[in-house]
Amino acid sequence: MKFICSQGALSRALNTVSKAVSLKTTIPILKGIKLSVKDNVLTLTASNLDMSIETTLDVSSGENGTAVVSARFFSDIVRKLPNALVTVNLEEGKLNVKCLGSDFSIVALSADEFPDMGRFDSENKIEINKEILKDIIKKTTFAASIDEKKGVLVGCLFDFKENLLEVASLDGFRMAVVKREIENSEERKVIIHYAILNEIQKILMESPEEGNIEIIPGDKKIELIIGETRVVARKLEGDFINYKDILPKDYKTRCVVEREELFYAIERASLFAREGKNRLIKMYFEDSEIEINSRNEQGKVKEILSADIEGESLAIGFNAGYLLDVLKVVGDSEIVLQMSSPTGPCIIRPLEGDAYTYLVLPVRISVN
Amino acid sequence: MKFICSQGALSRALNTVSKAVSLKTTIPILKGIKLSVKDNVLTLTASNLDMSIETTLDVSSGENGTAVVSARFFSDIVRKLPNALVTVNLEEGKLNVKCLGSDFSIVALSADEFPDMGRFDSENKIEINKEILKDIIKKTTFAASIDEKKGVLVGCLFDFKENLLEVASLDGFRMAVVKREIENSEERKVIIHYAILNEIQKILMESPEEGNIEIIPGDKKIELIIGETRVVARKLEGDFINYKDILPKDYKTRCVVEREELFYAIERASLFAREGKNRLIKMYFEDSEIEINSRNEQGKVKEILSADIEGESLAIGFNAGYLLDVLKVVGDSEIVLQMSSPTGPCIIRPLEGDAYTYLVLPVRISVN
Repeated sequence: MKFICSQGALSRALNTVSKAVSLKTTIPILKGIKLSVKDNVLTLTASNLDMSIETTLDVSSGENGTAVVSARFFSDIVRKLPNALVTVNLEEGKLNVKCLGSDFSIVALSADEFPDMGRFDSENKIEINKEILKDIIKKTTFAASIDEKKGVLVGCLFDFKENLLEVASLDGFRMAVVKREIENSEERKVIIHYAILNEIQKILMESPEEGNIEIIPGDKKIELIIGETRVVARKLEGDFINYKDILPKDYKTRCVVEREELFYAIERASLFAREGKNRLIKMYFEDSEIEINSRNEQGKVKEILSADIEGESLAIGFNAGYLLDVLKVVGDSEIVLQMSSPTGPCIIRPLEGDAYTYLVLPVRISVN
Repeated sequence: MKFICSQGALSRALNTVSKAVSLKTTIPILKGIKLSVKDNVLTLTASNLDMSIETTLDVSSGENGTAVVSARFFSDIVRKLPNALVTVNLEEGKLNVKCLGSDFSIVALSADEFPDMGRFDSENKIEINKEILKDIIKKTTFAASIDEKKGVLVGCLFDFKENLLEVASLDGFRMAVVKREIENSEERKVIIHYAILNEIQKILMESPEEGNIEIIPGDKKIELIIGETRVVARKLEGDFINYKDILPKDYKTRCVVEREELFYAIERASLFAREGKNRLIKMYFEDSEIEINSRNEQGKVKEILSADIEGESLAIGFNAGYLLDVLKVVGDSEIVLQMSSPTGPCIIRPLEGDAYTYLVLPVRISVN
């Protein structure tokens, strides 16, 4: 195997596939990146048990071939090389990397035992706009459970309906449901681990590609094609909770408020609340004002902001972090809060439509 | 006590004095910041046993007075307030902080037990250009010992001579000596802890002041006046090593090389050397070339760069980190290395003059 390419392009490709390298694995080959040259195209692949990433790069090739090298060493070397042409050459079990005055030699492994990415039937493909997919991931992964013992709750449910994608996640304290129109005819449900979605998000952010992403659901895995990059992710198996039953049908208090203003007020109000796990703040909805309180032995705070409040007055406690998580990812300048009682959930939604629906459970408080 | 000022100015002042707040102290008052209003000037003070910082701010004042409040809470609150006028008011042992819809109340302590900064006789003052002081600190603190058991070696010696400031630091493996011309008549020596110098460096970087810094050596402490900010630092007591005796008088190999090129070559050459503590690289000086090698079981690297080499050829080993530390802070495009043997020190200095002299001890190597 031999190829020549620019340091910059090789470094970017290594950065992309490195997201699937598991540094903690005890299987040496999985700490490696597979390099494969065929007809002036270099394919780089990395794989852990949950996720594989493959990307391609046009190179000047002297010789086809395949090798696996340490992801860490090879990435570090290429990143630190000067911005010039890099010549990579497999010789007697060593990968030689040359660039101007630098001459590296790294132990190479055989690619025979490197896991296969699998093939997917592209007839099943669903096309989705890149910006829409980024927006959906941003708005849902944070609400998934981070407790691996919670089964499918560590994942986000992607529910592909006719011309609609509905994505849901919940951890027992809060829930996110996001809906976007897409072109799709066949109904399919896929659950993907939040951590894999976060890596996919990074690839989406770093990719210069504009336009559509292809999603191809397979039997146990799902494939995403992002420009020159393929990502294959393991699907989580199991039935997702029927979350629609959890959403309350009506409310007694409805509040329209400036999202940013509410975000900063809650952030300040939680300054005296962050000692415990709960970050407990108390909120009072009354007479076109929201009052937010917290206190500890060091002091107390009262925040007041104006809002359109309809229906009954309400005193309710929340974990500030759960509200901030929602207010951080929603882009609208105004949002709607709907509540019924101090012990019932709070629903956060847009002024119009149902592009997103968040549910946050309250914390029981004693109101003086 | 009562005052009104802008959120931005108050936040910047708190950020400055917070550098002297010790979060680990068991003395509650030292976790606080002292606020003192007199005739439309707010003075903020923080102090730990080694260092005190005081800064002033023009405010609209309603009432003179003094209080101490938790540095952490007060700084967090002010930082998160909107960019508007802040009203601060001491009432019944509580500091009330109001800004638009925000209303905070923090426990305040009496300032009676807050340590005094001390007074210094400004007749002793030495003026030094701010950029020169920043440059000196950058070029010397890294070579001081980080081992508190090493006595004065955790400090940098500031040796004020007639119209010359010479600053030295050493840790047993490397040494830095930096010289700059300043206006000074009286000879004085002061040793200051590297960690205090690093905090002073941050204040210098953040301060919008241009022009001169005043340094006023006292008996046990030293005062620095940086614009509106006073820093009082404890002097380290003891005799500094007579470092001039350590500097070799002559050399057998002299090498002139591009600093940046050498930096990146050593950085790459140390990629296979960073497993152990030593980051051992081997360098060969011969025939207008420097060759740098390292190897481990994962691979090996050879870097070659051109250089002007006079005198004897030499093979010598170094801890890459010690060389990189020097090459990082020196600004010149070309530098000089002077060595005599594989076991003797390497001197790094400018092409002309003696603005800086670094000494780095080699690591004993077996040359095959």
